[in-house]
Amino acid sequence: MTSAASETRRTAGSRTERETNPVKPPGPKVVALGGGHGLYASLSALRRVTDRLTAVVTVADDGGSSGRLRRELGVLPPGDLRMALAALCGDDEWGQTWRDVVQHRFRSEGDLQGHAVGNLLIVALWELLGGDGDGDNTGPGGPGSTVAGLDWVGRLLGAHGRVLPMAAVPMDIVAEVRGADPARPGEITHVKGQVACASTPGSVLGVSLVPADPPACPEALAAVEDADWVVFGPGSWFTSVLPHLKVPALARALTSTRARRAVALNLAPQPGETDDFSPQTHLEVLQAHAPDLRVDVVLADAGVVDDPDALDKAVQRLGGRLVLAQVAADDGSPRHEPARLAQAFVQIFSD
Amino acid sequence: MTSAASETRRTAGSRTERETNPVKPPGPKVVALGGGHGLYASLSALRRVTDRLTAVVTVADDGGSSGRLRRELGVLPPGDLRMALAALCGDDEWGQTWRDVVQHRFRSEGDLQGHAVGNLLIVALWELLGGDGDGDNTGPGGPGSTVAGLDWVGRLLGAHGRVLPMAAVPMDIVAEVRGADPARPGEITHVKGQVACASTPGSVLGVSLVPADPPACPEALAAVEDADWVVFGPGSWFTSVLPHLKVPALARALTSTRARRAVALNLAPQPGETDDFSPQTHLEVLQAHAPDLRVDVVLADAGVVDDPDALDKAVQRLGGRLVLAQVAADDGSPRHEPARLAQAFVQIFSD
Repeated sequence: MTSAASETRRTAGSRTERETNPVKPPGPKVVALGGGHGLYASLSALRRVTDRLTAVVTVADDGGSSGRLRRELGVLPPGDLRMALAALCGDDEWGQTWRDVVQHRFRSEGDLQGHAVGNLLIVALWELLGGDGDGDNTGPGGPGSTVAGLDWVGRLLGAHGRVLPMAAVPMDIVAEVRGADPARPGEITHVKGQVACASTPGSVLGVSLVPADPPACPEALAAVEDADWVVFGPGSWFTSVLPHLKVPALARALTSTRARRAVALNLAPQPGETDDFSPQTHLEVLQAHAPDLRVDVVLADAGVVDDPDALDKAVQRLGGRLVLAQVAADDGSPRHEPARLAQAFVQIFSD
Repeated sequence: MTSAASETRRTAGSRTERETNPVKPPGPKVVALGGGHGLYASLSALRRVTDRLTAVVTVADDGGSSGRLRRELGVLPPGDLRMALAALCGDDEWGQTWRDVVQHRFRSEGDLQGHAVGNLLIVALWELLGGDGDGDNTGPGGPGSTVAGLDWVGRLLGAHGRVLPMAAVPMDIVAEVRGADPARPGEITHVKGQVACASTPGSVLGVSLVPADPPACPEALAAVEDADWVVFGPGSWFTSVLPHLKVPALARALTSTRARRAVALNLAPQPGETDDFSPQTHLEVLQAHAPDLRVDVVLADAGVVDDPDALDKAVQRLGGRLVLAQVAADDGSPRHEPARLAQAFVQIFSD
């Protein structure tokens, strides 16, 4: 949070807040940006730190169940939204059961193969609440229905936070890639679609979106503007973390918000997208996609940073400070341990 | 309810019951048998009359969304179960919204065309709670998962009652039909499958089930044995109402239960199944399918009975009395008006 907001909370606000929630204060207003497994990790941690959490989620998936729903019904790809909701579900039997239901995938040799139940549920709510009745499925429903549908699934799950799309229309990611064709390693070409971008054998240099200036989600803009902290990453850098910065209205809100900004770096480069990327390369790419963006804190795992000095310099170039902490799981996988990541966020938010 | 149960309620029980629910006593324990739109009508009425309501539902559908799920995933056809749950949903915004979601059907030119969302949700819960993990989808899940899955959807909807299948495995209806082939009007043949039976151009003489002695649903048997009233119909006579009597264990429970038995007749013959059937023909067919079954009350709409004396005699042959009431809607459709049907049940249960 900004220091002004922090002061307000510590003086006038904190007593009331503690009275309404004696066990745990509501915590700072946090917006987490990303998609897929990376956002699942940050939300699993952040929900332990604050009761005022909003996820703003990539809607550019074109593969799997989401891609099929998008093509068949003309809706936003729901998969990353579903995963974010699942990360926020309640801890009781109700929340856990419905989380398992929305995450369940049908396995068959027929039409339903691979569809995640929560994707179908989200799309059904969009169709139902859109309710223009023309049945042409040309969009995710009438105004407001996208967010209302996600809020209903959130209520079903007892979600500890709100899940919003980064844009109000389905997007396609276009990556500028060097050596997409291994036979011509120096050639720079464009690769379209999240699946193709995430799996290209070439080096991704940057991403853009089609359409280039999509309508933003008003509730997402408001959440960013009203936040105490905005958190980028972890996650697939080019296809889940950076796309938000290519939605012009959202990028403006992220740049101008009074909120402080944190970047949670990945624990390992991602094959295809960020082979051989050092932690500082991730930051350089971030800066290249949003030159005006200042960052207050960069969080990295102490065990995976080979050159802390170089990373520290890269962080300083963004205007921020580096926080090194043990946030990786012990099993050697490039996976964040939610409790450790939560502890790191507690430290960051309280400094 | 039986008079013994009624006495208990009026003396020892009623005070406590009224204290826990001052607005409305819990009402008699009622089991409603049927499927499809007929059961939807009886449940929409009975939920106004009692808080202790159980639906026992046909699971022989082989058409539409249910038929496809049954073939693709090897599960019970969920459609009639879904409709029964929808009929019992809560009256608040929560119940109404989730009712609309489970009843929503996808419309597309792709894989999801025609699937009802609630069918997918029920099947997902069966797969999830069955949880043997072998992924072969050979059945509706492990022991107990069928009922547990329906109970979870019931909790989601805030359902005013419980919904159970008439058998624990998918069934096929086989009809004995005269003149199934219009070119040979006198020939008696067998027609297999609910869709084929409901739409045959011939005259249906009777139905049987494949498998002939399916495992019953233990919770359904217990509900019938513990009931005050069992209600047959309204509904598609051969394909929704009579199949219960061809599940041997369920037929024995329906015959031996201490509960009283009511039959709610249809408002019009059904094309295909019961063309030209008089109300008394419906009762004769019922008796032919369960010769030992006694009936206490038969409810018919006064406006659609051409020959009350003939119907009265048919009712007496079953051991019961005829109740004539206005239960049809005013719009001329062969549709029961829930409030009127409820009023008729109040009268029947209190006599």
